[in-house]
Amino acid sequence: MLILTVDKASTVPVYRQIYERIGRLVDDGTLVPGDRLPPTRVLAQTVGVHRSSVLRAYGELWALGYLESRPGSYSTVRRRVPTRAAVPAAEGTLIDWAAVSTPTTRGARDDAARLGRERETRESVVDFARLSADRRIIPSDDLRRCLKAALLEEGRELLDYGDAAGYRPLREVIARHMRTHAVAVSADEVLITSGAQHALDLVLRLLTRAGNRVAVEAPTYGAALALFRFHGLDLVEIPMGPEGMDLDALDDVIARRGPRLVYTIPSFHNPTGITSGQAHRERLLALCEARRVPIVEDGFEEEMKYFGKAVLPIKSMDTRGVVIYVGTLSKVVFPGLRIGWIAAPRECVDRLVAIQRVSCLTGNSLAQAAAARFCRVGHYDAHLRRVHRVYRKRMQAMLRGLADHMPRGVEWTRPSGGYTLWLRVTGTKADEDTLQARLLRDGVRVSPGNLYFQTPRAEPSFRLSIACVTETEIEEGCRRLGRSLRGIVRA
Amino acid sequence: MLILTVDKASTVPVYRQIYERIGRLVDDGTLVPGDRLPPTRVLAQTVGVHRSSVLRAYGELWALGYLESRPGSYSTVRRRVPTRAAVPAAEGTLIDWAAVSTPTTRGARDDAARLGRERETRESVVDFARLSADRRIIPSDDLRRCLKAALLEEGRELLDYGDAAGYRPLREVIARHMRTHAVAVSADEVLITSGAQHALDLVLRLLTRAGNRVAVEAPTYGAALALFRFHGLDLVEIPMGPEGMDLDALDDVIARRGPRLVYTIPSFHNPTGITSGQAHRERLLALCEARRVPIVEDGFEEEMKYFGKAVLPIKSMDTRGVVIYVGTLSKVVFPGLRIGWIAAPRECVDRLVAIQRVSCLTGNSLAQAAAARFCRVGHYDAHLRRVHRVYRKRMQAMLRGLADHMPRGVEWTRPSGGYTLWLRVTGTKADEDTLQARLLRDGVRVSPGNLYFQTPRAEPSFRLSIACVTETEIEEGCRRLGRSLRGIVRA
Repeated sequence: MLILTVDKASTVPVYRQIYERIGRLVDDGTLVPGDRLPPTRVLAQTVGVHRSSVLRAYGELWALGYLESRPGSYSTVRRRVPTRAAVPAAEGTLIDWAAVSTPTTRGARDDAARLGRERETRESVVDFARLSADRRIIPSDDLRRCLKAALLEEGRELLDYGDAAGYRPLREVIARHMRTHAVAVSADEVLITSGAQHALDLVLRLLTRAGNRVAVEAPTYGAALALFRFHGLDLVEIPMGPEGMDLDALDDVIARRGPRLVYTIPSFHNPTGITSGQAHRERLLALCEARRVPIVEDGFEEEMKYFGKAVLPIKSMDTRGVVIYVGTLSKVVFPGLRIGWIAAPRECVDRLVAIQRVSCLTGNSLAQAAAARFCRVGHYDAHLRRVHRVYRKRMQAMLRGLADHMPRGVEWTRPSGGYTLWLRVTGTKADEDTLQARLLRDGVRVSPGNLYFQTPRAEPSFRLSIACVTETEIEEGCRRLGRSLRGIVRA
Repeated sequence: MLILTVDKASTVPVYRQIYERIGRLVDDGTLVPGDRLPPTRVLAQTVGVHRSSVLRAYGELWALGYLESRPGSYSTVRRRVPTRAAVPAAEGTLIDWAAVSTPTTRGARDDAARLGRERETRESVVDFARLSADRRIIPSDDLRRCLKAALLEEGRELLDYGDAAGYRPLREVIARHMRTHAVAVSADEVLITSGAQHALDLVLRLLTRAGNRVAVEAPTYGAALALFRFHGLDLVEIPMGPEGMDLDALDDVIARRGPRLVYTIPSFHNPTGITSGQAHRERLLALCEARRVPIVEDGFEEEMKYFGKAVLPIKSMDTRGVVIYVGTLSKVVFPGLRIGWIAAPRECVDRLVAIQRVSCLTGNSLAQAAAARFCRVGHYDAHLRRVHRVYRKRMQAMLRGLADHMPRGVEWTRPSGGYTLWLRVTGTKADEDTLQARLLRDGVRVSPGNLYFQTPRAEPSFRLSIACVTETEIEEGCRRLGRSLRGIVRA
């Protein structure tokens, strides 16, 4: 709707104020050829002037070539060349936005910029950096049908405000899904969020304040580190061993430094790809139970297992209610749908729902309804089988490629699932940035290891992701990686 | 995917552990009749046992009536009566969730409960409390076609992670939309959020820390108050006069108490329905410019104008970059789509985008693409015309009904647009809660005035909303209101 005001006290005639403003909207591209102007009667009423002034203004605009005027019809904007810059520049801002921003915002900007860079790609480069579901196998047609059915059957409810805890049938689908992983939760213990990152944000808003201590694996998920920093938390890094985080170190930290929570990714750990065993999980749980420290278990790729024996989530053993489980659909199917969830004790979920209501009222019910349908009719399981077929082969190709091409002095993990593995370059004095730049020049993009540490490490390491590369690309990427690193390790 | 583990050290035989676990999944309703079990070979491999153990377990399950076994086919779950409770109760939680929660969480729970209550309705009651787009006129078919087209044309991109600032074409649509309201912004000065509440949350995360002071109108939007409280802010209430907030009081507060920002709803103010005039807006802006205090302008119903002359947003006069404008599609079209936006100086938007990226990575690109299309093809403008037709009549019916039925001692505002008006009951000693309960008993739901104040007031007042009531219901509601209040004011 076009809204204009005029200044009746001005020496500029009213009709002129109107035609100048409309002319400016055409010049700056806001009104485009073919756009209708309001009927003169309507505009006169809205602006609060005589209709004759509007008629005169339209007449001037027509005379200046701005309008087509068809008798008995609406006035529409004519095709003509714009004569001014699209938008007049503001005079500059009186507020020093850097100064008025909270202290952690600066860090958030740097982190956001780093996270953004991870996404850039070039055609000729083999991209081992990108970590998200491969667009080429996203089942968008199935989703479209689910969306259509959801809208036809319950569109009016879905387009209204929904339940702050999430669309009930999706909570039921997720609870059932968790139960097939031996996690005994009901729909009331499940909260739907706008993705796993948002889930983690809610948990931090519930349990932490700036300055609180939090125990994290080192390395760990880069975007989680960014979020912890934005919350102003004091991060205590627990080193990752070949079996998962060092539990002796954790025990010591819990006993002596009182963290508010322990954040862990036990399966297909991001970035290392390590999956901890049953005994490791039991001891981790026991440590946290003994000191009543909540565990935040990030199961972001829980189902992406390709080889070997299954390991159950820590949450499946959580009879005493200390585990907050975070899940997501983003890594298997639709990142853009923004569907994550939290499974936690009812007491905890109720509080998280309150925070969700107060901070964003409700999630996207339509996306949630489509996701529920997608799972219920079996598309999710079918797609998961496809994902397994594809990624089992990609992971095999990756492990084979590394075995074939890596020089001595390079070590890597051997994940049984997920998208990522971790590569350490021990036989060099070159630093990580130099190595990364060199690899990129040689046609392989990798993710620098220091993105995943709070405290930077000297030894170069990299995260390699198979999320968005085909087997052929993987083979070629490993060849380039080997060629590039061989030169460096020799040097 | 079904995931099981077995304990090989246990005295319970492996096959028995398997059939007991599967049996439990059937009993608790996780596996339902018709569900397929994994092929024995696959399950044996996943669990890490001999295939013979799985064959034996399936045999036992078949013997117990859990499975249909079709030769040469999958084993599926048979129809039988569940024998146990759906989910075993946890042993109780070791964590005292109330004690480990941050201090403002308790308040958030109370506020969330209050906001939730607002939504409940009964058939026979005339609902003057509900404030959201009327489901009966939501154009869900148009949206469905926009979603379909968006998915067909760019489904794979939309279902991947998007831009943290929002889907670019929607930012352009919104920028253009703002320009028709005389706000000179480009797409780079627009950030798409998951609704206006989320927009406000981002702004508070950027500009405030717990204990900071913020100036708000009194009364003001209840969910904003809840959010301010969750952020632990010190709220300074500026009384609303008939023309908008008391600017002398604001001047004094800005000079002496240094608020971090001023939050205002200049058009169709929630809850009072008051729209401030041009001169008021100019002075408010000048006050804030003089002391360099950011204004957060909530334009949540900017376009819902039914009578009289248009007034431009404060943002339209903001040549010095002190105004952060918050907009939303929720009040005119689709609350459930969660589309809001912020228009602010580039410096400020860049920081907000960083916070959005760190706290939830990205919004829902699919919903944003559908909304962009909905606006671009003209559905939004067409729907807005319809909304105007419908609500102009409803507001007229409301003002007529109040004039016809209110007793002396009751005063109300006369909004020129929006959904709400404000009713004060001066001629009674009854308190607000008593009055509200009595009105509800007499068949009218209203929203209690104290929801909209930080400091409770003694004089009863109510917000009346015409959002979800027809003209007939409004007439009947006013009659009931009059009858009920007449009794009280007399008493």
